[in-house]
Amino acid sequence: MPVEIPVDSVGLVTPQTVTFSAPLELECGRCLPGYTLAYETYGTLNAQRSNAILLCHALSGDHHAAGYHSMNDRKPGWWEHLLGPRKAMDTERFFFVCANFIGSCKGSTGPASTNPETGAPWGLDFPMVTVRDWVKTQAELADYLGIEQWAAVVGGSLGGMQVMQWSMDYPERLRHAVVIAAAPKLTAQNIAFNEVCRQAIMTDPEFYNGRYYAHNTKPRRGLSLARMIGHITYLSDNAMRTKFGRDTRGGKAFSFGFDVDFEVESYLRYQGSSFVERFDANSYLYITKALDYFDPASTWGGNLAEAFASTRANFLVISFSSDWRFSPERSREIVQALYTCNRDVSYAEIEAEHGHDSFLMPIPQYVAVLGTYLGRVAEEVGA
Amino acid sequence: MPVEIPVDSVGLVTPQTVTFSAPLELECGRCLPGYTLAYETYGTLNAQRSNAILLCHALSGDHHAAGYHSMNDRKPGWWEHLLGPRKAMDTERFFFVCANFIGSCKGSTGPASTNPETGAPWGLDFPMVTVRDWVKTQAELADYLGIEQWAAVVGGSLGGMQVMQWSMDYPERLRHAVVIAAAPKLTAQNIAFNEVCRQAIMTDPEFYNGRYYAHNTKPRRGLSLARMIGHITYLSDNAMRTKFGRDTRGGKAFSFGFDVDFEVESYLRYQGSSFVERFDANSYLYITKALDYFDPASTWGGNLAEAFASTRANFLVISFSSDWRFSPERSREIVQALYTCNRDVSYAEIEAEHGHDSFLMPIPQYVAVLGTYLGRVAEEVGA
Repeated sequence: MPVEIPVDSVGLVTPQTVTFSAPLELECGRCLPGYTLAYETYGTLNAQRSNAILLCHALSGDHHAAGYHSMNDRKPGWWEHLLGPRKAMDTERFFFVCANFIGSCKGSTGPASTNPETGAPWGLDFPMVTVRDWVKTQAELADYLGIEQWAAVVGGSLGGMQVMQWSMDYPERLRHAVVIAAAPKLTAQNIAFNEVCRQAIMTDPEFYNGRYYAHNTKPRRGLSLARMIGHITYLSDNAMRTKFGRDTRGGKAFSFGFDVDFEVESYLRYQGSSFVERFDANSYLYITKALDYFDPASTWGGNLAEAFASTRANFLVISFSSDWRFSPERSREIVQALYTCNRDVSYAEIEAEHGHDSFLMPIPQYVAVLGTYLGRVAEEVGA
Repeated sequence: MPVEIPVDSVGLVTPQTVTFSAPLELECGRCLPGYTLAYETYGTLNAQRSNAILLCHALSGDHHAAGYHSMNDRKPGWWEHLLGPRKAMDTERFFFVCANFIGSCKGSTGPASTNPETGAPWGLDFPMVTVRDWVKTQAELADYLGIEQWAAVVGGSLGGMQVMQWSMDYPERLRHAVVIAAAPKLTAQNIAFNEVCRQAIMTDPEFYNGRYYAHNTKPRRGLSLARMIGHITYLSDNAMRTKFGRDTRGGKAFSFGFDVDFEVESYLRYQGSSFVERFDANSYLYITKALDYFDPASTWGGNLAEAFASTRANFLVISFSSDWRFSPERSREIVQALYTCNRDVSYAEIEAEHGHDSFLMPIPQYVAVLGTYLGRVAEEVGA
């Protein structure tokens, strides 16, 4: 709980929702009979409506990118370090919009929502959603908000994939695309980790084939394991070494048993169990599948440059040296493809030891690159 | 099933057992009231008893390093590619011994064995065993076989840790130490992966606190997940890309559901479920703990060179470029410590794309390094 809100925070924010009642045709071929998006905004839309920036969140993220919901909030939004008055993403110049994507569980329609046909939660009857579908719903939100063109679309990790998809599907509707710690598609190893996470959830006896809501339970063990695995891939080996090393909990001698010996074990168990309280297991399944499926080059015979050929945005691509989930090499593939099709692209590889999680951290070089780039965007759009 | 045994194989081998009835004092402070070791031998011990080589196996390995148990065997032993007549580990010159370590489940005493006090399987009442304990039992086996000094002790991965421990605990009893794809201790990331595997097993409702034997069941889901996670860490990202890429199973279109889409998913599920049939979950817990605890430098204030100072063996250290479980950097720590205390050490970093699993593969440069080194050892010991 903040005793007082820091002056460089956007302060108290109120989540909003909008419901679209027209059926949404999805990439999988099925239709969602209307849907709700939960979203937040920060800053003020100018009269020309030229200063709007869309933020796209990652796997376990949501629409709460900055500020506090109440004075009792333990933590601010996930991009608090970068988003606020006079920060790299400056709320005194831009109007930011961040929406929870469908399939998630933070207020937008997802597998835990009520299926209007049955009156019960969708569970695994919820249709598969993809990055392309998310971008489509975000375009409907832009229409609703009266935003013809985003000054920029910005996202990290899975959010960066949405940014790329935006540039391809609505080339005229964004001036700048900021792709952070992303990849043009998952590798076999990425998919393998996702699959183990899904198997952990789906083989949990309390999963009940996704109908655990009706049994007043949830697949806690499976979701907790999934989060533990995820956490290992978000941190670098070095970051873990710095943070925990081989320190034993409380400096104690080895237990020679199966309780916690090492600090890192204690940390992982906590990460796993706390995640269970705030995330829906079915959503985890759907979102990891959307990650696996993302591969915009696939419709162009695997040629990423052709996938980008129709884009109009200017690109900023940012990667982090110690990120092994989506390594700098993966960002360079994006940059190379953009060069090949003569797009305007800037690339920064940030020295950082926090692994994939770096995109959430206030690393000075990262803050500077992002702030400088968006400063120029602000001038360009008269923000 | 081999229609006929290949001529470069050791052929049909018969596992042996030996039972030591004296209590074994363990590093954890507890005592094991006697124990059995399952072991195999290949080649012939010469009259001077100078040509014996001890092989140390890894996590899921066993004493069956080469050859076939019957004409119905689907596969030969785990080091078949490297061990046999005129191979890198030449059974025409050396007498090889490989024993299943205690705590495992392949014939040596472990948590699935009967606790003489209760007449029931030990389960989690089995005492914790460490790399040091394993080396102690292997020394008792050497006594039993009348081998005063090994020409070499050779092992990969966890096997390499046993080799290092041998060189420290019984400096006069081995002439050469061959440490392959190992590390002087686990990193926080290594421990983290082990902990997730253990949590997968221990939170499986069919684990019954390790007493699943009495319930006629086993924690299949948990052990299968553990194996899947392990497999990802054994292969390199590149090896997975080469082997599976983003290929869908049977070249089919996306299912937009939660069945197998990608080949890599199918592979992992198979690896997981087949492992459950051949490995005991409690053993998996004990062995990963032995890995976590291994840190011979810890009794020397973290100074690995001091830990090696009392050793007398000559060392060959081998690492593989794409191994990210125990990277070449970790092998170089071993080499550096050996240099510091003026030990005789050769080091080879093998270009290989198979990740940690490379130590099991017949990679030509690896075969050549190992064969040449052991060829010199053979001359030295008159083998």
